[in-house]
Amino acid sequence: MIADGTAVTREDVAAAARRIAGFVLRTPVLEVSPGLFVKLELLQHSGSFKVRGAFNRILSAGPLPDSGVIAASGGNHGLAVAYAARTLGVRAEIFVPEVTSPVKVAGLAALGAHVTQTGAIYAEAAEAAAKRAAETGALSVHAYDQPEVIAGQGTTGLEIMEQTGGVDSVLVAVGGGGFAAGITLGTGDAGGAGPRIVAVEPELIPTLNAALAAGEPVPVGVSGVGADALGASRIGGLAFGVLSGPRVRSVLVPDEAIVAARRTLWERHRVVAEHAGAAAYAALLSGAYRPEEGERVAVVVCGSNTDPAGL
Amino acid sequence: MIADGTAVTREDVAAAARRIAGFVLRTPVLEVSPGLFVKLELLQHSGSFKVRGAFNRILSAGPLPDSGVIAASGGNHGLAVAYAARTLGVRAEIFVPEVTSPVKVAGLAALGAHVTQTGAIYAEAAEAAAKRAAETGALSVHAYDQPEVIAGQGTTGLEIMEQTGGVDSVLVAVGGGGFAAGITLGTGDAGGAGPRIVAVEPELIPTLNAALAAGEPVPVGVSGVGADALGASRIGGLAFGVLSGPRVRSVLVPDEAIVAARRTLWERHRVVAEHAGAAAYAALLSGAYRPEEGERVAVVVCGSNTDPAGL
Ligand SMILES: Cc1ncc(COP(=O)(O)O)c(C=O)c1O
Ligand SMILES: Cc1ncc(COP(=O)(O)O)c(C=O)c1O
Repeated sequence: MIADGTAVTREDVAAAARRIAGFVLRTPVLEVSPGLFVKLELLQHSGSFKVRGAFNRILSAGPLPDSGVIAASGGNHGLAVAYAARTLGVRAEIFVPEVTSPVKVAGLAALGAHVTQTGAIYAEAAEAAAKRAAETGALSVHAYDQPEVIAGQGTTGLEIMEQTGGVDSVLVAVGGGGFAAGITLGTGDAGGAGPRIVAVEPELIPTLNAALAAGEPVPVGVSGVGADALGASRIGGLAFGVLSGPRVRSVLVPDEAIVAARRTLWERHRVVAEHAGAAAYAALLSGAYRPEEGERVAVVVCGSNTDPAGL
Repeated sequence: MIADGTAVTREDVAAAARRIAGFVLRTPVLEVSPGLFVKLELLQHSGSFKVRGAFNRILSAGPLPDSGVIAASGGNHGLAVAYAARTLGVRAEIFVPEVTSPVKVAGLAALGAHVTQTGAIYAEAAEAAAKRAAETGALSVHAYDQPEVIAGQGTTGLEIMEQTGGVDSVLVAVGGGGFAAGITLGTGDAGGAGPRIVAVEPELIPTLNAALAAGEPVPVGVSGVGADALGASRIGGLAFGVLSGPRVRSVLVPDEAIVAARRTLWERHRVVAEHAGAAAYAALLSGAYRPEEGERVAVVVCGSNTDPAGL
C-alpha cells in the first residue's frame, strides 16, 4: 500500500495492475497504420480509464465504512466509482457540477449511485463532496490527486508497452493530470528512460501548460467542449511532480481540433469517443504534435460517455 | 492462385493473409469476460470484413482491364470493393439495390465509385451487374461466391485463433455464407478438427438454415433489419460446400434480438455496430446459442456502416 503524501512509483503501478486485474478490461490496441497505435481505452468498463484508479483506491483501502465511497467528478470518474462500488457491493455518493452532460448523469443513476448535481464546475462539486465526506466518513476517491488513483490509471501505460512492443511517444489527454502521470510511470522512469509523454490539453483548460509556465500548479479558466471531463481548475500536486519531469511535453489544441478529431475517429476508425476522449488524437490530426519519420506513436482514446447521435 | 471452381483450402486462407497483409487491419479482440472474446472486425477499413475478400480477389487477378472492377452488393461489399479500388488506383462500378441504406450509398459516392442503385434486393442488383460486366469486361468481385473472396474473409478466422490462443466456438453472421465459410477454413479443418462454427442468420433470411433442411441451396425470402447486409436470396454454392460440414451449427435469431443486441453492444461495450454486425452477438444474448460451462467463445462483430444517431 502507498503511504499518503509519498511519490508514486513504477512498482505501485505494477502492484495496481495485479490488484485490479479481475475487475477491469485489458482494452485492445488497434494499429491503424504502421507504427501508429490507438489504445482503445474508451471500451473500458464505465466508458473510461477511470475505473482503473477507482478500483485500485477502493481495493487498497481495507474494510470500508457503511457510508461506502464518495467522489466528486466531471462525470467519468463518478461513473467509474459508481461502477466499482456496484461491483463490490458498497454504497456510492457522487457529486457532479452543472456542466456534467445528461448522458453522464443518467448513467450515474442507472448504476444506482446517490447523485448530487451542484456547483458550476468540478472544483465546486469537489468542495461540496469534501464537506459531505467529513460528515459521513465515506472513503473519498479523488478524481486525480491520490497516489492509488494515479497508480491505477498508470496500468494503461503498462498495457500500451506490452501490446505495442514499445513506442517512442504516448499522446494522452490531461485534466487534473492523474492519467498522464500514471501513464508516465507505467511506461518508464519518471526521471529518465521511457517514451515521450505528450500531454494534450484544450487551449481553454491549460492546467498543466499554465503550471509548467508558472513553475507550480496555478488556477486556470474552465470552458469549452472538454469541460465535463478535463475540467479541473488546477493540475493535481502529485501529478505535477511527475509531469514536470523531462519526459513530458505539453501541447495545447483548440476546441475545433477536438471536435474534428472526434468526427474523424468515427468516420475513419468507427470509434465513438467523447470530446475529451478525442483530445489526444486531435493533437496528432491537427499537427499540434508532429511525430518524426519512423516514430512509433501510441494515442490513448480514453472516453466514450457521449451521445452518438451528435455524430 | 485458386483455380476457378475448385474447393477453397486452409492453405488458400494462409496465402490470402500474406497477400492482403499490407492492405487490411489486423482488427483487435476484446475479452469482455473470461473466455468471451469479441472480434472487433467492425473497425476494419470500409467498416466491415469485406475488404479482406475484395483485396484478395483483386490482388490475385493479375493485370486489370481499364474498366477496372465491378461488384453487386447490399452495401458493405460495395464499400469494400470501392475502398480497395481507390487504394489500388483502379476504377470501380458498384450496383446496389433499393434496400441499401443511405449511409452506405453516401459512403460509396465518397469513395469515388460509380454507383447504380437498381432492383429491390441484392439478387436483382447482382443480375444488373452481371449484365454490365459482360459489356465492359471489368473484373467481377463477387460478394461471397468466389474462392478468392472466401479465402480472404477466412483471414479473420486465422486472426481469431492467434489473438485468443484458441476458442471452442465462433459465432458469425451468414448472408451468402462467404464469411462463415472462410472462417470455418481459417480456424481449422472443414471436415473435422477446429472450433464449432455457429452460423447465425435472421429468421427472416434463413439462407443456410433452409439449405441445410433441403440438402441444397434454395431461395428464401429477404426482409427485416438485416436485409441490407445479410440479404442474399440463397446461400452460395461454394459456401454451402463448407457450411454443410460437421463443424457448423445453424442458428436463427428474430429481428428483435438483433435490435436489442445492437443496443447492448453500444450501452455495455461502446461498440457501434450495424444490425448485421450485431447478429452473431444476438445469438448469445438471446440464448439462441448457449455455450457450455467453461466454453471459450469468439463472437465476430463485423459491420459498422450505420447511422449512430439511431442508438
Ligand atoms: C475521457 C477523459 N480523458 C482524460 C481525462 C483526464 O484525466 P486526469 O484528470 O487524470 O488528467 C478525463 C478525466 O476525467 C477523462 O474523463
Ligand atoms: C456486416 C455483415 N455481416 C455479415 C455478412 C455476411 O457475409 P456473407 O454474405 O459472406 O455471408 C455481411 C455481408 O454483406 C455483412 O455486411
